[in-house]
Amino acid sequence: MSRIVNVDIDHAPYSILIGQDLLSSVESILPLLAQKRVAIVTNETIAPLYLNGLVALLAQAGVQSQAIVLPDGEQYKTWDSLNMIFGALLTERAERKTTLIALGGGVIGDMTGFAAAIYQRGVPFIQIPTTLLAQVDSSVGGKTAINHPLGKNMIGAFYQPKLVLADLTTLDTLPQREFSAGMAEVIKYGLIDDVEFLTWLEQNIVGLMNRDKELIAYAVERCCQNKARIVAADEKETGQRALLNLGHTFGHAIEAGLGYGTWLHGEAVAAGMVLAAYASRALGHLDDADIARVISLIERAGLPVVAPALGLERYKALMAQDKKVDAGRIKFILLRALGDAYIGELPEVAIDAALISGCAAAK
Amino acid sequence: MSRIVNVDIDHAPYSILIGQDLLSSVESILPLLAQKRVAIVTNETIAPLYLNGLVALLAQAGVQSQAIVLPDGEQYKTWDSLNMIFGALLTERAERKTTLIALGGGVIGDMTGFAAAIYQRGVPFIQIPTTLLAQVDSSVGGKTAINHPLGKNMIGAFYQPKLVLADLTTLDTLPQREFSAGMAEVIKYGLIDDVEFLTWLEQNIVGLMNRDKELIAYAVERCCQNKARIVAADEKETGQRALLNLGHTFGHAIEAGLGYGTWLHGEAVAAGMVLAAYASRALGHLDDADIARVISLIERAGLPVVAPALGLERYKALMAQDKKVDAGRIKFILLRALGDAYIGELPEVAIDAALISGCAAAK
Repeated sequence: MSRIVNVDIDHAPYSILIGQDLLSSVESILPLLAQKRVAIVTNETIAPLYLNGLVALLAQAGVQSQAIVLPDGEQYKTWDSLNMIFGALLTERAERKTTLIALGGGVIGDMTGFAAAIYQRGVPFIQIPTTLLAQVDSSVGGKTAINHPLGKNMIGAFYQPKLVLADLTTLDTLPQREFSAGMAEVIKYGLIDDVEFLTWLEQNIVGLMNRDKELIAYAVERCCQNKARIVAADEKETGQRALLNLGHTFGHAIEAGLGYGTWLHGEAVAAGMVLAAYASRALGHLDDADIARVISLIERAGLPVVAPALGLERYKALMAQDKKVDAGRIKFILLRALGDAYIGELPEVAIDAALISGCAAAK
Repeated sequence: MSRIVNVDIDHAPYSILIGQDLLSSVESILPLLAQKRVAIVTNETIAPLYLNGLVALLAQAGVQSQAIVLPDGEQYKTWDSLNMIFGALLTERAERKTTLIALGGGVIGDMTGFAAAIYQRGVPFIQIPTTLLAQVDSSVGGKTAINHPLGKNMIGAFYQPKLVLADLTTLDTLPQREFSAGMAEVIKYGLIDDVEFLTWLEQNIVGLMNRDKELIAYAVERCCQNKARIVAADEKETGQRALLNLGHTFGHAIEAGLGYGTWLHGEAVAAGMVLAAYASRALGHLDDADIARVISLIERAGLPVVAPALGLERYKALMAQDKKVDAGRIKFILLRALGDAYIGELPEVAIDAALISGCAAAK
């Protein structure tokens, strides 16, 4: 039995299917194909696990597949990888009705979605996320991008998939470090505006980390419901969608400062959320008990709670490059309380206080 | 007195202003800026003519400008040029509300529009076309793209400007070869679905080529009206918008086959329209008198009517790479009669007949 979450975006509604063994059938994919032809973009880690099976099922249904296998890692989320996709598509003469399928984690999903957005000015695409992070967050909502040496996700598009197929069975092969990284985004939803879910996570974190299938299914569905609601109300991030970036302004600085791929995106977001909590404490919103709850949950999810020692000035320079900057002022996602995030500015003293409290250098 | 043509696209309507000396004021631009900051993308040919004046007028209004000057020519419509734009924007920390202004011809407009579509997932942009081709065609309708070594305009987006400012005075500095190239797209509108305009062009071609300002103003307005009507009805080219590609499937093959920048885009389209006419004759739609009318008008506009000798097989291989391919079949824009274009397929014998009639090799 699969669970269904609908993403009600006006011009491009679509469904997220969540369940076990979804990749054992292509019944949900076939009706969406504009022609019996797809290009599957995946990486060297995922390809040996799931590519042949998917290609064989599609072939049985008369669908011709082209496979494009990229190297694995955030450091490859670049124009060069994107251009490998375009070169392969053009060499095989992929057409405007050819559907791109992203089979992999957040990096594959972001790049494949962006490739679909701009190949021949837009072709259909389907997300098959195979990591927890991609299933609960990056595959939903149509944010696609590549990194630029001067900033993460700086080049991209809002472009919605036709379907998200979240096969929970693929998580069985996910290394624990990657599973933890996904948990960062799961915890994020609780902190933003779902304190009931936050409490549920605190109660069930051990079971989740032990990969209890029922608990994971519930968590993925709940996250997708939260994300679908926020995205449907604000597809292009003119307002509330920015809340989903809790921990990300600090986190992007960590990723860029250490070099992409050193920390996983989810790890950087985890430490970034702790920094956002310290900043919220500096503003008088959170108390020490709140901070302790945040740190405890993130730690129990196997994630870093201490940010790397990049130095205050380097953090601030990296954050000034963020997309959430308006007239030179950085917009931060802060917490009025646990489960009550808002978009605001931070006085420099509060940024400093957060970095001093939350970075390794100060320990 | 400027003429106004409205482009009534549902989610993003905008206006085209057409007139003399429009660049002597920024009154029409100012109300559209989301912040008092712009980045002007132009090329080495246009910058010495119009850049300083525009920057000064904006500065007087308190608007901060960043200038990004690219090399001039279709051969630079590449990812490398696009990346120069991104590097400059990121270095100067251009934000999501910073407006990009395209100041130049079709290449600058296509690249700046595409840069605006994907920088930080989309920022506002304004078109200031300075060539006839850009004023009558490429600046209107939101098609943006760069070329790929394996195909023209293969990577891009549909992304609408906030305003098109067509200052006819900029045509005074346009070399005659470039003016002729623009006339190819002007003639295209007559051939597609405006036989009254086609007849007007035949009657006024000498005056137009002598740069009669009133005639040019009328022609630009009429072309923009035609384009606005077609684009408003079919923004994403799911149907009738493809008619605007008359001559372009053959033309893109010519451009790619000779190497981008050898023939101007408009020159390739001119010879491509003659090939499309020959193909339409091979299908029994046009007679020799129709062909003679087409050739005569294109010749009097100073444009090539004989396509280069690339060889039949090379032409067909290049055209098979076109975006207008569905299930391996190329969609051609053909003429049922002069002023009555349609989208259809061509049997190989008709393609051969057209190429043999219209290419230099057969002469």
